[in-house]
Amino acid sequence: MRALVFDGQLRLATVPPPQPQTGQALLKLRRAGICNTDLELVAGLYHFTGILGHEFVAEVEQGPSHLIGQRVVGEINIGCGQCDFCQRGISSQCRNRSAVGIHQHPGAFADYLALSASNLHHVPDSISDDTAVFVEPLAAALQIMEGVHISPRDRIIVLGLGKLGMLAVQVLRLTGADVIGVVRHEKQSQLLSRWGITACTYQDLESERAQVVVDCTGQASGFSDALHLVEARGTIVLKSTYEGLPQVNLTQVAAREIRIVGSRCGPFEAALRLLQAGLVDVESLIEARYPFAAAPDAMQHAGQRGTLKVLLDF
Amino acid sequence: MRALVFDGQLRLATVPPPQPQTGQALLKLRRAGICNTDLELVAGLYHFTGILGHEFVAEVEQGPSHLIGQRVVGEINIGCGQCDFCQRGISSQCRNRSAVGIHQHPGAFADYLALSASNLHHVPDSISDDTAVFVEPLAAALQIMEGVHISPRDRIIVLGLGKLGMLAVQVLRLTGADVIGVVRHEKQSQLLSRWGITACTYQDLESERAQVVVDCTGQASGFSDALHLVEARGTIVLKSTYEGLPQVNLTQVAAREIRIVGSRCGPFEAALRLLQAGLVDVESLIEARYPFAAAPDAMQHAGQRGTLKVLLDF
Repeated sequence: MRALVFDGQLRLATVPPPQPQTGQALLKLRRAGICNTDLELVAGLYHFTGILGHEFVAEVEQGPSHLIGQRVVGEINIGCGQCDFCQRGISSQCRNRSAVGIHQHPGAFADYLALSASNLHHVPDSISDDTAVFVEPLAAALQIMEGVHISPRDRIIVLGLGKLGMLAVQVLRLTGADVIGVVRHEKQSQLLSRWGITACTYQDLESERAQVVVDCTGQASGFSDALHLVEARGTIVLKSTYEGLPQVNLTQVAAREIRIVGSRCGPFEAALRLLQAGLVDVESLIEARYPFAAAPDAMQHAGQRGTLKVLLDF
Repeated sequence: MRALVFDGQLRLATVPPPQPQTGQALLKLRRAGICNTDLELVAGLYHFTGILGHEFVAEVEQGPSHLIGQRVVGEINIGCGQCDFCQRGISSQCRNRSAVGIHQHPGAFADYLALSASNLHHVPDSISDDTAVFVEPLAAALQIMEGVHISPRDRIIVLGLGKLGMLAVQVLRLTGADVIGVVRHEKQSQLLSRWGITACTYQDLESERAQVVVDCTGQASGFSDALHLVEARGTIVLKSTYEGLPQVNLTQVAAREIRIVGSRCGPFEAALRLLQAGLVDVESLIEARYPFAAAPDAMQHAGQRGTLKVLLDF
């Protein structure tokens, strides 16, 4: 089968198809999305080698009989089932986990993927492939609400309106809170305007006036901006990984009693419900689509500054 | 009156006694305690000049009639009464606050202090001056529980067993949680042993096994140790200010969904209740006492590494 492999170099390769193990289903890929994490893996940040990709929709070819022929999306963390986190039902933080296309598990940028059947979620017919491919990042955006109580009275500022930030503003808007996206170019303003979300530049914003600031920038300057914008006893949500080790004004965090909350993978079923209800616009985020044979070009396109979602068609 | 003044240099000076303004009481000092913040002010960290000191017990000489002659302790933050924080009852985070002996308000290392009467709390007769002087730092330790829900099932590690850390382990112990203090010398082990609290060295501890880590070290290495010890979805409480801008592995905070919670001044009434009930041992923390005339020597003593509480007698 074809696979997009990273082993120090990114290349389209022909590899043997996976043999599903006990408990796994064999998935035939239909569509996949490129995430910033994929770009970071190719930049060498997490020492990953293998098949990339973790945002996808696929059809079950082999596996439990009730799943055969169904369209599915898949959670990316595979827990050991034994550790204290797995026993508490938090396999996303399993002490021995692997993660599809990220850590010790083949990814979804390939014709076939073998994945634990318990990771799969059925995609209703009313959700298109283009939409379903956003379930994984939309779930990650919804994880903000798993970690932080959002009040409808809150003012919430979102920094870093890329692929994930554009989903974060939309799910936060559903709480009724006053959501403000910090824009850096016209395309971002247009999308926010379409959704009725306030767009501001950073310079427009008064300091220490937001109850919640969500940092999707992945940059030290983003965190420092978040600290400037959040009010005393407010919350900063970290929705990205960061390059290097940012310097942080921990004294200000202590003295102003700020909370910082890390946030990672989220609830697929909630994401599917919002997409089925049409409450989140994901298709406007699709910037380009490539046939899988042109996957290296798609990765290059996705890596250009300001690019939103690039899809791969199988 | 006599006052311990810092104006770039630390010196005992003779200054005019304060004239209480509307709403203020005039307090005659009985005893005061030296806090790390006092040492940091003298090190020039917060650009403060004036009379130092914010941990004290005093007698009311002028003010509201029901307070005259009473022994009192005093909250250190003076709110403006107008801003959104004051209106929510959070004067400790008032946008225009001053703070006794720390920020734009004279301190308690003087024969007299004029302080807003609404900041005062009556000290019951059963609480000695030596004990009452710990109300302010004990309240700060209790603020941990205002910011973080502590479960009796939690394993809690406290780093930095100085003046504040020794109060933090004691209030955390009252929750029934498994509290572990990280010790660096014999005096710390002896105190923890007296209170029935587990003492460990950092090297004894397994990584990622604590639900809560309280960092009272005020050092970048302390925060980094806390991040090493806390498990996924666990909480790090920042109970100190930090020198400079520590480098922080924000990627790990995001990926492991850690919470970081800043914590500052706390509830005086709760501290008074615990002291009255004899549930916290503060007198064991008194390392030395000096007459106020020797306040500069007392400050020097308090600044020696590993010194616990140094008191000033008026």
